[in-house]
Amino acid sequence: MAKAKKSKLKIIPLGGVDGIGRNITVFECGEDIIVVDCGISFAEVDTPGIDFVIPDISYLEGCMEKVRGIFITHGHEDHIGAIPFFLKRINVPVYATRLTLGILENKLIEHNMRDVCELVEVAAGDVVEDGNFAVEFIHVNHSIADSCALHIYTPAGNALVTGDFKIDLTPIDGETMDLARFAEIGSEGLDVLLCDSTNVERVGFTQSEKIVGAFLERIMFNTDKRIIIATFSSNVHRVQQIIDASAKFGRKVVITGRSMLNVINAASRLGYMTIPEGILIEVGDMKRYNMDQITIITTGSQGEPMSALYRMAYGEHAQIKLGKDDLVVLSSSPIPGNEKLICNITNELLKRGATVLNDDAVSDVHVSGHASREELKIMHRLTQPEYFIPIHGEYKHLIRHMELAKELGMDEENIFIPEQGHIIELSPSGMKKRGNVPNGVLYVDGAGFGDLGSGVLKERMKLSEDGVVIITVTLDSEFNSILSGPETISRGFAYVGEAEEITEQLNGLAAEVIEKCLDKGYCDFSTIKSKIRGEISGFIFKQTKRRPMVIPIIMSVAL
Amino acid sequence: MAKAKKSKLKIIPLGGVDGIGRNITVFECGEDIIVVDCGISFAEVDTPGIDFVIPDISYLEGCMEKVRGIFITHGHEDHIGAIPFFLKRINVPVYATRLTLGILENKLIEHNMRDVCELVEVAAGDVVEDGNFAVEFIHVNHSIADSCALHIYTPAGNALVTGDFKIDLTPIDGETMDLARFAEIGSEGLDVLLCDSTNVERVGFTQSEKIVGAFLERIMFNTDKRIIIATFSSNVHRVQQIIDASAKFGRKVVITGRSMLNVINAASRLGYMTIPEGILIEVGDMKRYNMDQITIITTGSQGEPMSALYRMAYGEHAQIKLGKDDLVVLSSSPIPGNEKLICNITNELLKRGATVLNDDAVSDVHVSGHASREELKIMHRLTQPEYFIPIHGEYKHLIRHMELAKELGMDEENIFIPEQGHIIELSPSGMKKRGNVPNGVLYVDGAGFGDLGSGVLKERMKLSEDGVVIITVTLDSEFNSILSGPETISRGFAYVGEAEEITEQLNGLAAEVIEKCLDKGYCDFSTIKSKIRGEISGFIFKQTKRRPMVIPIIMSVAL
Repeated sequence: MAKAKKSKLKIIPLGGVDGIGRNITVFECGEDIIVVDCGISFAEVDTPGIDFVIPDISYLEGCMEKVRGIFITHGHEDHIGAIPFFLKRINVPVYATRLTLGILENKLIEHNMRDVCELVEVAAGDVVEDGNFAVEFIHVNHSIADSCALHIYTPAGNALVTGDFKIDLTPIDGETMDLARFAEIGSEGLDVLLCDSTNVERVGFTQSEKIVGAFLERIMFNTDKRIIIATFSSNVHRVQQIIDASAKFGRKVVITGRSMLNVINAASRLGYMTIPEGILIEVGDMKRYNMDQITIITTGSQGEPMSALYRMAYGEHAQIKLGKDDLVVLSSSPIPGNEKLICNITNELLKRGATVLNDDAVSDVHVSGHASREELKIMHRLTQPEYFIPIHGEYKHLIRHMELAKELGMDEENIFIPEQGHIIELSPSGMKKRGNVPNGVLYVDGAGFGDLGSGVLKERMKLSEDGVVIITVTLDSEFNSILSGPETISRGFAYVGEAEEITEQLNGLAAEVIEKCLDKGYCDFSTIKSKIRGEISGFIFKQTKRRPMVIPIIMSVAL
Repeated sequence: MAKAKKSKLKIIPLGGVDGIGRNITVFECGEDIIVVDCGISFAEVDTPGIDFVIPDISYLEGCMEKVRGIFITHGHEDHIGAIPFFLKRINVPVYATRLTLGILENKLIEHNMRDVCELVEVAAGDVVEDGNFAVEFIHVNHSIADSCALHIYTPAGNALVTGDFKIDLTPIDGETMDLARFAEIGSEGLDVLLCDSTNVERVGFTQSEKIVGAFLERIMFNTDKRIIIATFSSNVHRVQQIIDASAKFGRKVVITGRSMLNVINAASRLGYMTIPEGILIEVGDMKRYNMDQITIITTGSQGEPMSALYRMAYGEHAQIKLGKDDLVVLSSSPIPGNEKLICNITNELLKRGATVLNDDAVSDVHVSGHASREELKIMHRLTQPEYFIPIHGEYKHLIRHMELAKELGMDEENIFIPEQGHIIELSPSGMKKRGNVPNGVLYVDGAGFGDLGSGVLKERMKLSEDGVVIITVTLDSEFNSILSGPETISRGFAYVGEAEEITEQLNGLAAEVIEKCLDKGYCDFSTIKSKIRGEISGFIFKQTKRRPMVIPIIMSVAL
């Protein structure tokens, strides 16, 4: 394609560039906008009680009429999880491959939105044209089937978004990612590469998914125990390998965990899995088989509380009781932050007498779905971009990816470390950073979602540190005297035995403070509250070296 | 020594066997008890606001007159941190090597206890005899100098506690652990081995501390940046290597962070560090040197909030501002649970333009202080114990260590996986588990410590999940009518914009509930409170799918 570059292409990451997850990138050219992916991220230590986090798309809401569609690379939560929230505000067509749409469809049904959304199925190799954009889907390997990179072609130039990928030279479905097409794009001339940075800290080459299957077969050959394998439900190739190995060694397969059942149903219905006739049995039928004739595939590989594996580990699973005749395989690696949960679940499984295999130096029970350094180098060499934007990672990953590109000979000036909301503009005069658009995050907690940012989350953190002390008092409405109280109530604050004594002291101190206020003729709630808060906080800190949240409540009664 | 075995030796772990930290093991023989180590462990996700955790020693308090002394293997917090709390309850002599005592002494001074405690200095090779016990200190390598294993000899048999150790064949102080003595003990006959399990999941052999020095020299040779190195203050050999490398390359050294200053002072005063004349400078004098003439040694390698490195990373350090002429070395590996903190601090440092080196596959900036599998095998082979008790680790580590011992030919019946409070008894008829002693943990939070176990911590967790909703109302003392309120106050609960609306609704609902109670003639606080709590919780969950803690407060005024 000859390039008659005119106009400008703006690339705006609204997420996915300052931490793992919440991937969403906006491409804007003339009067048209397309959005690539729209995922969630998970709660962290400093966001207690949050279910998950979604990108703030108010920038797009401000120019809604320009938005042509969402183009999805693959069906993981960090790429599709926020789409229902997006479509509620901006209802545009969604373009994706079949399995990705299958997973998204389940999600939309849960939100009662299936009927009002337009889902457009594409296949790797297809090109979708819309306004100034032509978007080509290119097959890549990843830990979920049907993953694609997107080649985005515009009058202002072209961009390649790799999505999450690895180069698997012996993939389960026989389809190595389309290296030839990446090379072709490179030869034709690529303006901007946006590339996955997740595994940039790993040296070498990520191992093929196939080695997990080989290892599982070795285990099944060597053990007469029942085998319980926990993995991500979305990794249909992993699940396929577990089923294939079980079939080979005459094991029946039990599926447990809601999301595992959902994905296996969707994947086999859509033709992404082949399940041998009669191999699946119900959990209740396990008793008709010997232990060495059973494989259980389950959710919970991240130690998630109340997942099927968690309930088995803590002896709370109604139908599956584990013991010394069980071999548990954690076919996954910890998502950062989940290390301790996984350690706890491993301890519990071992305490029940089960054998446990983790992903470690001697057990090939898991491989990553992301490209390691040598694969990233291949991607850069094949596509030969003029400009480079590392995406998908913590800030440190983006920096390491920049260093990798520089090692390959790229000029630092041609590399853009993106921050959320940056406008990176490609024009005939080159690529430049041009200001910011509104951006941020929204917290989803229960039925509500919105801006908990500053206030509510800080309050929760503070409450969790040292608890809360509430001082209530009723005054007459003329501020002459105390009618009732002060009464102190605390939660999460004082130790057993300590509480009663300190409560008495606080009641006495609060009474003194209030009497003094009334004597001085203070007659507004806020002054009295602030005096109480100050004195009580000070006293508590002196006595206990703790800083609970202190809440004074004053009521008044007209006599 | 000829063994005339009589009586019994009880081995009772009161900590250190169900998670990393809080190491303490009791040895009881006849009328004598000795205690090996007495450490703390750190707060976890489910113990918010806790400073640290100490072992419950009520078993020992019940037989205080038998306790002869505490014998310490080395000066890390997880082995000495709870000694002040122990000595406040049971004041017995403490036996340890010089550096260990130096660090403990600082701690006792902070607790105003130095004068009332008896600290007895021993050297590797010394034997302390007391009642039925003879305790020999044997030099081992570890990430703190002056570490020892303890050989405990009693009429009922002998036990070897390795303490934390690694086998460093090129140690910084020239003293490889006393392998010959371990072999001798094995030849003479060892009844029980209690061995460190921390690194049992690591294959191979832990690298020598020396490689870190070599790597630091390579960095200093190649960079003209200022170098900031964060490490554990107690690792005096690491700090010595940083100072030596700096001296070699003409760099002055700035020490920052309170614990770093304390330890370097103690270590050099006691002869464990050699600091070249004039190499240390004050932070204020840095401006007189070029960037490539300065090394800063700091605390904060675990990303601890408010540590010196944390303040530098977030631009809050009064005297040290980092930028693109700085190279930060995180000379440590994450303690499980700290991964995210370290990731965050790395991101911040990179955002300031600094270069950051972490412990990864290509940077030898850190080595572990614990024995990997091949070293553990050497320990087992040298000491040839009849019985084996794996200690120091998560349950999973103890199990893996048992498996390792079995690989070496040990009979599973001779291996005891200890749990906290187990009595493991060695007698002429062999080793057996014999019941339990009282055991548990105490939480230290601010000035207080005690049993927060069930109530307070659960309240904190609940508060952090969805916050708190407080409903206050004042009634007349005859329960005829509402005099004031109900008033709803929430913290950590509702979103911006959402709060006002729901507060109004809750006030209305609470008023209805209370009026209904009064109409029905309910006139006790607890019934009315429980009605309010039930209705309000139900309403909130229906509206928001959240479950905040609901606290009704009723005051009454006599009219």
